[in-house]
Amino acid sequence: SGDFVGYSFWLISMALAASTIFFLMEALRMGGKWATSLTVSALVTFIAAFHYMYMREVWVSTGASPTDFRYIDWLLTVPLLMIEFYLILAAITKVSGGIFWRLLIGTLVMLVPGYMGEAGYLNVTVGFVIGMLGWFYILYEIFAGEASKVAAAEATAAVQKSYGLMKWTVTIGWAIYPIGYFLGYLAGGTDQGTLNIVYNLADVLNKIAFGLFIWYAANEDTS
Amino acid sequence: SGDFVGYSFWLISMALAASTIFFLMEALRMGGKWATSLTVSALVTFIAAFHYMYMREVWVSTGASPTDFRYIDWLLTVPLLMIEFYLILAAITKVSGGIFWRLLIGTLVMLVPGYMGEAGYLNVTVGFVIGMLGWFYILYEIFAGEASKVAAAEATAAVQKSYGLMKWTVTIGWAIYPIGYFLGYLAGGTDQGTLNIVYNLADVLNKIAFGLFIWYAANEDTS
Amino acid sequence: SGDFVGYSFWLISMALAASTIFFLMEALRMGGKWATSLTVSALVTFIAAFHYMYMREVWVSTGASPTDFRYIDWLLTVPLLMIEFYLILAAITKVSGGIFWRLLIGTLVMLVPGYMGEAGYLNVTVGFVIGMLGWFYILYEIFAGEASKVAAAEATAAVQKSYGLMKWTVTIGWAIYPIGYFLGYLAGGTDQGTLNIVYNLADVLNKIAFGLFIWYAANEDTS
Ligand SMILES: CC1=C(/C=C/C(C)=C/C=C/C(C)=C/C=O)C(C)(C)CCC1
Ligand SMILES: CC1=C(/C=C/C(C)=C/C=C/C(C)=C/C=O)C(C)(C)CCC1
Ligand SMILES: CC1=C(/C=C/C(C)=C/C=C/C(C)=C/C=O)C(C)(C)CCC1
Repeated sequence: SGDFVGYSFWLISMALAASTIFFLMEALRMGGKWATSLTVSALVTFIAAFHYMYMREVWVSTGASPTDFRYIDWLLTVPLLMIEFYLILAAITKVSGGIFWRLLIGTLVMLVPGYMGEAGYLNVTVGFVIGMLGWFYILYEIFAGEASKVAAAEATAAVQKSYGLMKWTVTIGWAIYPIGYFLGYLAGGTDQGTLNIVYNLADVLNKIAFGLFIWYAANEDTS
Repeated sequence: SGDFVGYSFWLISMALAASTIFFLMEALRMGGKWATSLTVSALVTFIAAFHYMYMREVWVSTGASPTDFRYIDWLLTVPLLMIEFYLILAAITKVSGGIFWRLLIGTLVMLVPGYMGEAGYLNVTVGFVIGMLGWFYILYEIFAGEASKVAAAEATAAVQKSYGLMKWTVTIGWAIYPIGYFLGYLAGGTDQGTLNIVYNLADVLNKIAFGLFIWYAANEDTS
Repeated sequence: SGDFVGYSFWLISMALAASTIFFLMEALRMGGKWATSLTVSALVTFIAAFHYMYMREVWVSTGASPTDFRYIDWLLTVPLLMIEFYLILAAITKVSGGIFWRLLIGTLVMLVPGYMGEAGYLNVTVGFVIGMLGWFYILYEIFAGEASKVAAAEATAAVQKSYGLMKWTVTIGWAIYPIGYFLGYLAGGTDQGTLNIVYNLADVLNKIAFGLFIWYAANEDTS
């Protein structure tokens, strides 16, 4: 009772599970190429719902931060989020697969050294700096690279709006994780409970709202 | 914490579960004959997701390699993968069921003696040699047998590309299992943890990517 | 390790679960009257998958034959298999519901005294003999009764082929159960492990292959 960190794990896992059903049903309703984007949104929330239930158990029974399972979740869900930039453009025009592969490389450069830093296989500062470079590379791609040019030149108004919201989510929503890392390991430590609540709430934006931005474009362009 | 073998079981079981949803949704979206191929891809990942969750539990709680359950998984999923060679050709032209039955026989000749060797019901070398013959027979069928001829003569460009990727997966991706067997039983033993991680990662190619190759052909040929 | 009876319960429950997904997906794909037959095939495999998981637990934890649960499974699945004879004919022509009701009566006459014999509520020989009469009545109906006449006179080539395969499954595939009963209770007992493996493998034919025979006719007649 009163374990608000535990509650936030529970709350998010329910919200993620419900989002999964929503995205799958809307994919079935809309059909066509948009269905694939919505299905991928559902995969993100499905995988995360599962991980959150498990992370809650770890938290409730040990009181420790389930860091390893956050990274396993990220390793699966962040590439799927990156595919979305490709898919929402592929739903309306012809785009090269290179967009996805470059974003995938950025993801791995961001996550692998970050994990190695947290888990003690790499100096925490080095892990942080390399991870930041990976993230910056992703931001470069979606703000100034091929994807951004295709979006500006060929996308419908709805896709442009949702592309913009997705882009800023990757900028502002994602910043929470390196900030948490910085506070926890480089700025003298932070309260684990608070950090987990912040991470959990961040996923409402980065996983659920991100999926809803795609749903918005899909819904506008199919009706 | 830090049990990377256990993490890889978890990671793959999540990836397999998510793939199952993806293949089922895409089967519903595409319809027609291609839907059957995508449904069978989903059955492979579904069965494997279940086995992986169980194998993870075996590993985490006993530290032993869940060899028996790998073979049970293979006994179900390898025939389903073989059906795919038949189904992707049947989606575009008329093909004889003999293609599937010959591949099924190759599968049993590969797996049954392999298991008997590992489990001590047959000399390990004999089990290995007979198993290799079964695999070579499968390779002969898909590289030079009836299926390969139908693919070359009648398949669309997309089906030919995906047939080629599937063929090479059976060659290179599958090679990991007999190599593991050889290292473990015939070349003086190998580290069980490492071996399980390699097997687990191999299934990303042999089960998930294999399904995505089929999805590629289905997606190209229906849109 | 090495508990092959336990493995066979696991293997069949996975195969049944996968078959359920397959039949449901194909029902959605095909639509029309055939969808109902495929959905009923899925109900059979779904109910059995559940029973098998539970029966496996009983076997693994107690080493006893889960006889009661086999009968509960049969009480649900055998009538559904009987409905299939009606449904595949109803998918192509107008047939009377009497076909189903007579097969249902045969089922109850076969199963109820059989169970009472095994459970000790009736003399084992009496239970066996009455049960056999029920089975023979079912065989009469599908070989020489109304259903067989409709199949011969009005069915398409594909439905006739699948009707034939179903008919012979009820003859040969089903014979395994009374033989098991006979060996176990009337011929001086038999090894419970072997008997369970044989029963489990029989269900691959009687539940999964039976469903695939129907799928064959459905697939031929809708494409
Ligand atoms: C930059 C950076 C990091 C960024 C992590 C991010 C941005 C994770 C995003 C996860 C998401 C969006 C999950 C949603 O499904 C680390 C690895 C913490 C540390 C190294 C520097
Ligand atoms: C050749 C050979 C083997 C090959 C096993 C293979 C190729 C398994 C493939 C499994 C797959 C692809 C599962 C995916 O779902 C054994 C039995 C290890 C030992 C005997 C020689
Ligand atoms: C004739 C006979 C029997 C037959 C049982 C059968 C035929 C069961 C079939 C079950 C199936 C087909 C299940 C599949 O879902 C008993 C009751 C063993 C004993 C009495 C004589």
